[in-house]
Amino acid sequence: MAATGREFFTVKTVSEALSGFRPAHVTPVETVALDGVCGRVPAGDLRAREALPGFDRSSVDGYAVRAADTYGASESIPGYLRLVGAVQMGTAAMEEVASGAAVAIPTGGMLPAGADAVVMIEHTAEATADAIEVTRPVAPGENVVRFDEDVAAGAAIASRGRPLRAQDVALLAAAGVVDVAVHKRPRVTILATGDEVVPPNTAGLSPGQVRDALSVSVGALVLEAGGEPSPPRIVPDEDGALREALATRIGVSDVVVICAGSSVGMRDQTAGAVAALPNSETWCHGLAIKPGKPTLLAQSNGVPIIGLPGNPRSALVVFRLLGMPLVRRAGGWTSEPRVGKVRAALTRDLPSAAGRLDVVQVRLSDAGLAEPIFGSSALLSVLTAADGYVIVPEDANGLSAGEPVDVFPYG
Amino acid sequence: MAATGREFFTVKTVSEALSGFRPAHVTPVETVALDGVCGRVPAGDLRAREALPGFDRSSVDGYAVRAADTYGASESIPGYLRLVGAVQMGTAAMEEVASGAAVAIPTGGMLPAGADAVVMIEHTAEATADAIEVTRPVAPGENVVRFDEDVAAGAAIASRGRPLRAQDVALLAAAGVVDVAVHKRPRVTILATGDEVVPPNTAGLSPGQVRDALSVSVGALVLEAGGEPSPPRIVPDEDGALREALATRIGVSDVVVICAGSSVGMRDQTAGAVAALPNSETWCHGLAIKPGKPTLLAQSNGVPIIGLPGNPRSALVVFRLLGMPLVRRAGGWTSEPRVGKVRAALTRDLPSAAGRLDVVQVRLSDAGLAEPIFGSSALLSVLTAADGYVIVPEDANGLSAGEPVDVFPYG
Repeated sequence: MAATGREFFTVKTVSEALSGFRPAHVTPVETVALDGVCGRVPAGDLRAREALPGFDRSSVDGYAVRAADTYGASESIPGYLRLVGAVQMGTAAMEEVASGAAVAIPTGGMLPAGADAVVMIEHTAEATADAIEVTRPVAPGENVVRFDEDVAAGAAIASRGRPLRAQDVALLAAAGVVDVAVHKRPRVTILATGDEVVPPNTAGLSPGQVRDALSVSVGALVLEAGGEPSPPRIVPDEDGALREALATRIGVSDVVVICAGSSVGMRDQTAGAVAALPNSETWCHGLAIKPGKPTLLAQSNGVPIIGLPGNPRSALVVFRLLGMPLVRRAGGWTSEPRVGKVRAALTRDLPSAAGRLDVVQVRLSDAGLAEPIFGSSALLSVLTAADGYVIVPEDANGLSAGEPVDVFPYG
Repeated sequence: MAATGREFFTVKTVSEALSGFRPAHVTPVETVALDGVCGRVPAGDLRAREALPGFDRSSVDGYAVRAADTYGASESIPGYLRLVGAVQMGTAAMEEVASGAAVAIPTGGMLPAGADAVVMIEHTAEATADAIEVTRPVAPGENVVRFDEDVAAGAAIASRGRPLRAQDVALLAAAGVVDVAVHKRPRVTILATGDEVVPPNTAGLSPGQVRDALSVSVGALVLEAGGEPSPPRIVPDEDGALREALATRIGVSDVVVICAGSSVGMRDQTAGAVAALPNSETWCHGLAIKPGKPTLLAQSNGVPIIGLPGNPRSALVVFRLLGMPLVRRAGGWTSEPRVGKVRAALTRDLPSAAGRLDVVQVRLSDAGLAEPIFGSSALLSVLTAADGYVIVPEDANGLSAGEPVDVFPYG
């Protein structure tokens, strides 16, 4: 360890980083079949070529009628209609509904010509084999989904920059859009650095060695953000090794993560390796966040590079807050997902320095309490014991016991 | 359509269904490598075979010292210590720290014998080539992660029945647990029924035909719940076809979903096909939910069967609320995930009948407003326009405009 610089050069706040660090690189486009597009990000707006539904449909099981024929019908004085046929699913109705007539129709059936409404089966009774009683009137259009009521021909059914959800996939299927142009999943290179780091499958550790906990767990968060983690690579501390690894990987990566590349000891090496990359810029070296201060943000040719703190807990906290948005944006997201929170009351005070964002792990109780978990930022067990975390924002001087807080649940 | 029964036989509430419909079938166990276990559910508690860390470690960049040697040190009257060496990462320190001595140590380095604390580099200065100034005292144990402070040997590091999160994966990697016994992903058979239903890749529709919007979108929710959807199967309305499909699939499925198998028209056929299965039981036929009343819940040999309403919007609402928990439980989850919500104020009244749970789609505005989206339960566009949904619980008579509500965001 070269004990040189003692302070972080360019400390930024988390909100500055989230709004200001916006490397331009976005993955190219590929075509993906419908059963693989949920969660993927369309590269352009997707439009329906035809109206949906393509015909007036019944939204209930019942009888297609002329609404005017049902006016005045009630339980005590039902109306009577001639039953002239039944709609078969998947085909056009053969019978026309003349005045005084009704045609049986199932949910989703195509409204026969002449009919303008459907009476629910619950509001009818069979009078004879070829007549029904109607015990409640319907208005024109009632229980009918109009041709093009779901989507007009040419209308947008999904927007670029927002990942597709199950319901979007359903609408695409209904519209016959079975191949979708989406951004490729960002390829994320994860470099673990340090002579002490050995692969997780190392059975016996020598004194001073630790297993690489970050590659696989950061990889899991990469997957959650829609990216594809590269196979783990452990880079020794020796001079030039990181520089060589970065130079090799930057051209085949959409995001680069350097684990433990940003502690004071590794800082100069990481900064030097980044500076050696083409069109590189170090955006910040140090974040006003606890845990996670020794974070580096840089880019090369628009490809984001994030240097995570050496302590695994800090690294996972920082990657969740800052790394996952980088992966999402590289994958074409144009906004962040809406994150739900759990409201709970703090069991104790959370002191915090103003100007710094604190991420505090908490246990949630069924009674609606959030119990902070403290401990060294080196301890993964603080994270594994937590049900979620609370953010003490930059402009707060801590939070008080009893105060209601928003907990971001781990799920 | 056989217009027989007019009411639903056995209507239950959603909470009765969630707590009372608990088919016993759970998937068997398989061993999965660490990079594939995030989100998977351990079949048993996972324990560390050894303590973590395996040695006292520094949690900062600095100097390993005897704490007593730093007492009284300050900016104005620094203490002086002899620099006798440097800890190399990944190996045991060679030098012992005697009284008055210091050894340079990086974050994560192994504490040398004799030392009991680490002074942060920020609180030191290089006095000469072989001496440092200390400007702040440390207490014994300060900036040191004690041997076994993260995890004691033999302690549980992940629990059965709860899916593994990124931090759990990190701790497993640190502990050298690289093969994990987890429940297999539940295989979910999705049967789309109806003569009107054609595959999504059908280019031109005949009158009365619709494309199968549900198989692929329910499949997306199955994936989200940790299951594996089977390839889509469209079952015609003809007698015996559903019975045959169910009989074929039940033995190779952990959950069965019948789309549109529960409308009044399909009810008798579905009920008959379920009744023909071995050890079958129909738990309810009709749910007090809007949209989604025509929902069927059944089981055969402990394998859950859910019959979804014919309207695609109702089907997706019901599958999210009831189907996804069935998939999770079949996959070994013993509790439901904690779901975060977004607090917002309703822009208008939401009338609702007591005793029924209403699921209302809403748009969220940046101003914190939730605007309900109304429309036929046949309209998928109501779901695609929504940012989330509000639940009007069974015991409420609707909600009032301006009232703060919890919105379940779609993300």
